[in-house]
Amino acid sequence: MSKNNKISEKFIINTYFKKLNHNKVESFDFKNDAAFLKVQKNKKIIVTNDSILQSIDFFKNDPPESIATKIITYNLSDISSMGASPYAYTLSLCLPKNIKKIWLKKFSMKLKVLQKKYNFFLIGGDLSKSNKIILSSNFFGIAEKDKILQRSGARINHDIWITGNIGESAIGLKIKQKKIKISSFYKKYFIKKYLYPMPSSVLIAYKINKYATSAIDVSDGFLGDLEKITEQSNVGASINSKLIPFSKKTKYLIKNKIVKINYLLTAGDDYEILFTASNKNSSKIKSLSKKNNIKITKVGKIIQKKGIFLDNKTIKIINKSFQHFS
Amino acid sequence: MSKNNKISEKFIINTYFKKLNHNKVESFDFKNDAAFLKVQKNKKIIVTNDSILQSIDFFKNDPPESIATKIITYNLSDISSMGASPYAYTLSLCLPKNIKKIWLKKFSMKLKVLQKKYNFFLIGGDLSKSNKIILSSNFFGIAEKDKILQRSGARINHDIWITGNIGESAIGLKIKQKKIKISSFYKKYFIKKYLYPMPSSVLIAYKINKYATSAIDVSDGFLGDLEKITEQSNVGASINSKLIPFSKKTKYLIKNKIVKINYLLTAGDDYEILFTASNKNSSKIKSLSKKNNIKITKVGKIIQKKGIFLDNKTIKIINKSFQHFS
Repeated sequence: MSKNNKISEKFIINTYFKKLNHNKVESFDFKNDAAFLKVQKNKKIIVTNDSILQSIDFFKNDPPESIATKIITYNLSDISSMGASPYAYTLSLCLPKNIKKIWLKKFSMKLKVLQKKYNFFLIGGDLSKSNKIILSSNFFGIAEKDKILQRSGARINHDIWITGNIGESAIGLKIKQKKIKISSFYKKYFIKKYLYPMPSSVLIAYKINKYATSAIDVSDGFLGDLEKITEQSNVGASINSKLIPFSKKTKYLIKNKIVKINYLLTAGDDYEILFTASNKNSSKIKSLSKKNNIKITKVGKIIQKKGIFLDNKTIKIINKSFQHFS
Repeated sequence: MSKNNKISEKFIINTYFKKLNHNKVESFDFKNDAAFLKVQKNKKIIVTNDSILQSIDFFKNDPPESIATKIITYNLSDISSMGASPYAYTLSLCLPKNIKKIWLKKFSMKLKVLQKKYNFFLIGGDLSKSNKIILSSNFFGIAEKDKILQRSGARINHDIWITGNIGESAIGLKIKQKKIKISSFYKKYFIKKYLYPMPSSVLIAYKINKYATSAIDVSDGFLGDLEKITEQSNVGASINSKLIPFSKKTKYLIKNKIVKINYLLTAGDDYEILFTASNKNSSKIKSLSKKNNIKITKVGKIIQKKGIFLDNKTIKIINKSFQHFS
């Protein structure tokens, strides 16, 4: 460390990130310009890329554990929706020069916890200095060859399923933005859901792959992401709003008109897996849900008529994902 | 496009980036959450990660073609120094919301030119909005299995080689910063070298692999990067400063005391390949150089005594790469 108490890149890597490579040979112990990927026979490597930015995906003073959770979740849910299991990731960190050691410690510890839980490791990365915190990650997953789940496989009469609950992170954001006033009990619950979006779906996605015909992770809103499946499969979808899985606490807020269902279905950041499956696999999916103690709910059907129909009414989706630049 | 004339993400992807996937099946035509990587038998996938940031790696008003060149070069030279040939890349773009169409057009066109020249394609990516331009890329290369070049293979008496010329980009930076005053002829030449660092080494690195025992790309300065090889190989290095390859124009500036050799050897951003090889391969490397019309110069020897010796004097390197955070 230099005299002025700022932290060197070497110190940061050795102290906080080296242990995250789990001593895997692929990382070359972070001693080379690049790493390599191992591929087993009959497997394919899936790759995805997501970035999160201060003031957009998180707030400056959010806990470092929350920021670590988000960069992993955003990528992990993409891998999962392709039917792959986690393997490794690269991490490009842009950090302010006055970043604190305690921040780095908490951030890297959380990464380690998630790595152990979901069985993946850090393969390489890059450190830069910037005014705001910006993280970019490439995440690698392993899929069975010829069993990569895509958005385009939904067919007429297939059931539409969703894992977990919808809308909790979005309610947390509204509370953080002080757009909803609510008792501290609810406040604490939903803000936690906003800060730590780590859905149960990640644990089950790999098993869903066996039965699903198409899948997507719900990052841009349930309806918007469903539309991506219907557009790419050249079909329509009919959803019964009464079947949408909301938690008891969310239902309470809906009942008391504190939040609208429409907002919850379009707000995004759920990271649950939305998928379609043939009706003949319905009971298998239900038993998968029961066996793993993970909520999976049938919410509608794929139909021939193009568009998204909520309770038989056609709806127009302004897709959040297309508005980043608008 | 929305009424206020700002550009949607969908528009940007379809107009400027879709064509960059070269219709490769691996990208799923950018229609899924992730892409996949093809691996041939007896090959390995090499992965590297580099980011570039406005105000650090480039200036706000630098040509978009220059920024495109830099994000590719930074990654391509890493892949090359591992002895791999280019395959594909992901691109995470953080762009200001008022980014111009002409900027996007020039930027993506330059990417296309480089992709065609070096035979690789865009496999996926991510768009975000930010105040400054920030680019992060994961680059994939293909190496022969068990023939991955590392930094740790240098042995006593091995020759030390470097491709191309050293110091030209660093001189361009000094001119841009107005720290050097010089005639417009020189100014134009060196600023171009700063803006478009695309060394010839990329074309030859894959062939060097056959003879090299260790390699690194010169991004943090010739001496600093040489030190990484010696440290990881547990050896020392003796360099003859008279043998260091400088262009005629650089030699003119050295002779007239406008730049110091020491600066050129520590400034970095050369992206040439520094490598070691057994003396028995010396003539083969020379003929490789001749055949491909690419400068490769022997500049010193690996020695037993630890440290870097320039003209037999030991030198202390303050490695730029460790100072990002200091």
